[in-house]
Amino acid sequence: MGRWVPGARGRLQRAAFELFAERGFEQTTVAEIATRAELTERTFFRHFADKREVLFAGQDALAEHIAAALADAPDDLSALDAAVLAVEASAEILGGHPAGPRARQAVIDAHPELRERELIKMEGLVAIIAEGLGRRGVPAAAASLAAASAVAVFRMGFERWIRAEDGASLDGCIRAALVELRAVTAG
Amino acid sequence: MGRWVPGARGRLQRAAFELFAERGFEQTTVAEIATRAELTERTFFRHFADKREVLFAGQDALAEHIAAALADAPDDLSALDAAVLAVEASAEILGGHPAGPRARQAVIDAHPELRERELIKMEGLVAIIAEGLGRRGVPAAAASLAAASAVAVFRMGFERWIRAEDGASLDGCIRAALVELRAVTAG
Repeated sequence: MGRWVPGARGRLQRAAFELFAERGFEQTTVAEIATRAELTERTFFRHFADKREVLFAGQDALAEHIAAALADAPDDLSALDAAVLAVEASAEILGGHPAGPRARQAVIDAHPELRERELIKMEGLVAIIAEGLGRRGVPAAAASLAAASAVAVFRMGFERWIRAEDGASLDGCIRAALVELRAVTAG
Repeated sequence: MGRWVPGARGRLQRAAFELFAERGFEQTTVAEIATRAELTERTFFRHFADKREVLFAGQDALAEHIAAALADAPDDLSALDAAVLAVEASAEILGGHPAGPRARQAVIDAHPELRERELIKMEGLVAIIAEGLGRRGVPAAAASLAAASAVAVFRMGFERWIRAEDGASLDGCIRAALVELRAVTAG
């Protein structure tokens, strides 16, 4: 879920996603990525450990940003509202246009081992949010359920956003998914 | 989440869990498991591909049982109530006493690569439940959110059940987690 940052790192990411889409993930070499980005392999390895890392490099920063947003959420919000406000803050990192995240997701969805890694990152995000809710005084069970629900809402909102044809915003898609979750869970 | 079935398979599982707990997962060999169960290695390999398989052999049967319970759930239940009724049916497979599942979970929790495999199985369960809800006419987004919620409720109920000191039942723990989920998600 990396943003197109300016400079070498962003050029390498963009080149990698283009090549993954054109040739497939396995068929793409680091040398080809560097060439497409008009940079050297040496520069590539200053930014990323390997080509897989290009896909996941942004996720730790994203999780930190979400944790910070949760810490800053107003005290009077419910656990779930605070958690969803925090995952909505992902829009500030992922940027306004879904083309990059959509290309990244296409590569991940096509490779079971990358989907597993993504899944583990999402489980890590649940744990980070549950921890943050705990620091707000939410009891452990409620924190864990609110965190799992917020991440389910994030995943659905994100998926809709990258598929949307109408220019919907990521935070708008997340908010709409929360409304649906509440409809589904209403007793 | 295997039950103690009678016969060789159950003896091998019990012997394996005992040895994993005593010596650690890596330090235990198939030969030791067979010896403890008073069986041969050959018999072990008729039942399991490797020692890791002992831990996960029951999960596909469990998922099938849950899918069947979902198909049988009364038509007038909401998507979430049907999905939770289905995961409650796991109690029929996992049996009445949490000692076996607790020993299994202790091994898994101690090994990141086993936790990843467990996580992937849980994601598979979400997909199976979402599919089953789709066959009941639930729209895709609601099916996906209800399935994710039901599995979150299952995981919390299961965890409480294996830690419970008071002989609480698995389905009772799952039902209690559903009540908490509804409290957390209420608008």
